[in-house]
Amino acid sequence: MKAIWSSTLCSLTGSLTTSVSFISPRSLSILRPAPSFLFFDHRSLPKTYSNNHHHQSRRTTTTTTSMAASFSPEEARVPPAIQMPTPPITKFKIGLCQLAVTADKERNIAHARKAVEEAAQKGAQLVLLPEIWNSPYSNDSFPVYAEDIDAGSDASPSTAMLSEVARLLKITIVGGSIPERCLDKLYNTCCVFGTDGKLKAKHRKIHLFDIDIPGKISFMESKTLTAGETPTIVDTEVGRIGIGICYDIRFQELAILYAARGAHLICYPGAFNMTTGPLHWELLQRARAADNQLYVATCSPARDAGAGYVAWGHSTLVGPFGEILATTEHEEATIISEIDYSQIELRRSNLPLAKQRRGDLYQLVDVQRLNSR
Amino acid sequence: MKAIWSSTLCSLTGSLTTSVSFISPRSLSILRPAPSFLFFDHRSLPKTYSNNHHHQSRRTTTTTTSMAASFSPEEARVPPAIQMPTPPITKFKIGLCQLAVTADKERNIAHARKAVEEAAQKGAQLVLLPEIWNSPYSNDSFPVYAEDIDAGSDASPSTAMLSEVARLLKITIVGGSIPERCLDKLYNTCCVFGTDGKLKAKHRKIHLFDIDIPGKISFMESKTLTAGETPTIVDTEVGRIGIGICYDIRFQELAILYAARGAHLICYPGAFNMTTGPLHWELLQRARAADNQLYVATCSPARDAGAGYVAWGHSTLVGPFGEILATTEHEEATIISEIDYSQIELRRSNLPLAKQRRGDLYQLVDVQRLNSR
Repeated sequence: MKAIWSSTLCSLTGSLTTSVSFISPRSLSILRPAPSFLFFDHRSLPKTYSNNHHHQSRRTTTTTTSMAASFSPEEARVPPAIQMPTPPITKFKIGLCQLAVTADKERNIAHARKAVEEAAQKGAQLVLLPEIWNSPYSNDSFPVYAEDIDAGSDASPSTAMLSEVARLLKITIVGGSIPERCLDKLYNTCCVFGTDGKLKAKHRKIHLFDIDIPGKISFMESKTLTAGETPTIVDTEVGRIGIGICYDIRFQELAILYAARGAHLICYPGAFNMTTGPLHWELLQRARAADNQLYVATCSPARDAGAGYVAWGHSTLVGPFGEILATTEHEEATIISEIDYSQIELRRSNLPLAKQRRGDLYQLVDVQRLNSR
Repeated sequence: MKAIWSSTLCSLTGSLTTSVSFISPRSLSILRPAPSFLFFDHRSLPKTYSNNHHHQSRRTTTTTTSMAASFSPEEARVPPAIQMPTPPITKFKIGLCQLAVTADKERNIAHARKAVEEAAQKGAQLVLLPEIWNSPYSNDSFPVYAEDIDAGSDASPSTAMLSEVARLLKITIVGGSIPERCLDKLYNTCCVFGTDGKLKAKHRKIHLFDIDIPGKISFMESKTLTAGETPTIVDTEVGRIGIGICYDIRFQELAILYAARGAHLICYPGAFNMTTGPLHWELLQRARAADNQLYVATCSPARDAGAGYVAWGHSTLVGPFGEILATTEHEEATIISEIDYSQIELRRSNLPLAKQRRGDLYQLVDVQRLNSR
């Protein structure tokens, strides 16, 4: 274990039980252009720029065969990638609760609670729930079922249940998503609870599901929902987890960004449909895992052929080699499967992609992290 | 056709028969830091920086439901993405020649010629060959089989054949790859020939295949080969084509960069192996196509179980929805399949990913294109 993992935690987090906060209202309020010029000058620009006076020698050195030394792979991520922290636990069980969702919110909450409890009984230390598990998935339902998460338990019975059950069972819960009301806006929101029942992070779906495939499926989340404004990555008792909700998985940059922030696992609660599900759901999960060499876990509602929106199902755990470790069909089911973070380091030593990237040719900029420096 | 495609070509290319050149020795020699500061100030930095004096109003506008207007998707690519040009032809046939490769170079050249001729007879207007088709795939062979492509026909019988057959058959050839000798260096190089037989572009593998999976496969291309220094995209008679060679496909940034330069198609000659092939070859091809909503074509050598390096085979054409349009097994075979570029626009209107990206959160910088401005 010690041989595999770096013994130093990244400087971004005070402790592993603290959410990783890359940008604060305070840091936003003091943004000025000057630091970015300096940053781009010294760090993110290719050497042909930042070491302009060494231009000729640079051209010479890039033709050596030692890629890692010559092509500045560390500059392929701006700011530079954070080394993956030592996880608090290497091996543990994850539970993916693919739930049947009804129009009865109280029933949905009780039903989800039972599924989480059963998963914990089977040894799950991390439980993942589906996208929109307390409400039908429709623009008509979102305002009706939405809860004010920030206002606390009475205003948000769904998250109050998750908090309580996380504390009682001493497990981490990535609570799928529910419609959230905040002031006059609605969001599609995922809450992460720690083993003490405290809310560790809240992810509002960044990329809204606005698609139109004539004759197949049309859906416009933006009719009722507002998009979130920030990526969400959180240090938990079971490792550093990046969160995306469903359509967020289509944007490869978000997964790259989470990997560069040191994520062990990306959780995507999601409800792909009968048109894009068969072709893309497994593909996208496996691609995000293999390209970024980390774990990906997804959780969908069970399929209800009579619903206005028919979910594809197929909740899945994918390992850092892009291999499917566990999956299910479309019916209600709970997957219990093992995550072994030492596999990440193994795959990264087999295929050292991070050392082979070409920072002289492309760079992925994590804008908020850059601005918060 | 005219309704679907933009009628204006991007300003980067003088004509469709000219290779897209993003960086020249001349432009490299005049690089100065100042323009990049200005560029980052006005274009690539998030609005919170570049419009600092409007900071408060920016924070307000990002909470509207209109993602495209609020979140600067056009800033997700730096420099901004180039609109895909009108292709000279919308529908055409591509031929993927999965060739058996031997230690006899003359035989390999004659054999490849025959395969290209047969593909053209079956209507292929674009023919793709495998990675390292004139030589065994080994570090011992590369120096022996390498040719001096720039020195012309006598010094490079493999590319001389491709040039001649392209001219005689009036087809475009993406000529797989061969070991190239240039001064004291060796490269893994793909040549693209136009219908006039002229060399339109030359791609030197950017990411060398250095992997080590103990007990399964170990290969270090960097022992003999030097990595290329630039992405390669070329306007041909059959559309704008980005080139990657084998391991290049693992680096998602390269495909993003080609898509942002307006590629219709990315061609990856490649020879995945028996360890990574089954798990990753199809996955990576489909992911690059679906994420970037363009065509991906791959071509492998046929499998030779007695070779030092055993190729997985499975040459494939993937459409812009990530769908496999044609594929083969591991034996020698030629695939003839149709490409229909109007499908790109269809898929992009179904799933408008380009308009939904979050330039306020992440940006993919095309370093050489940025520097050449």
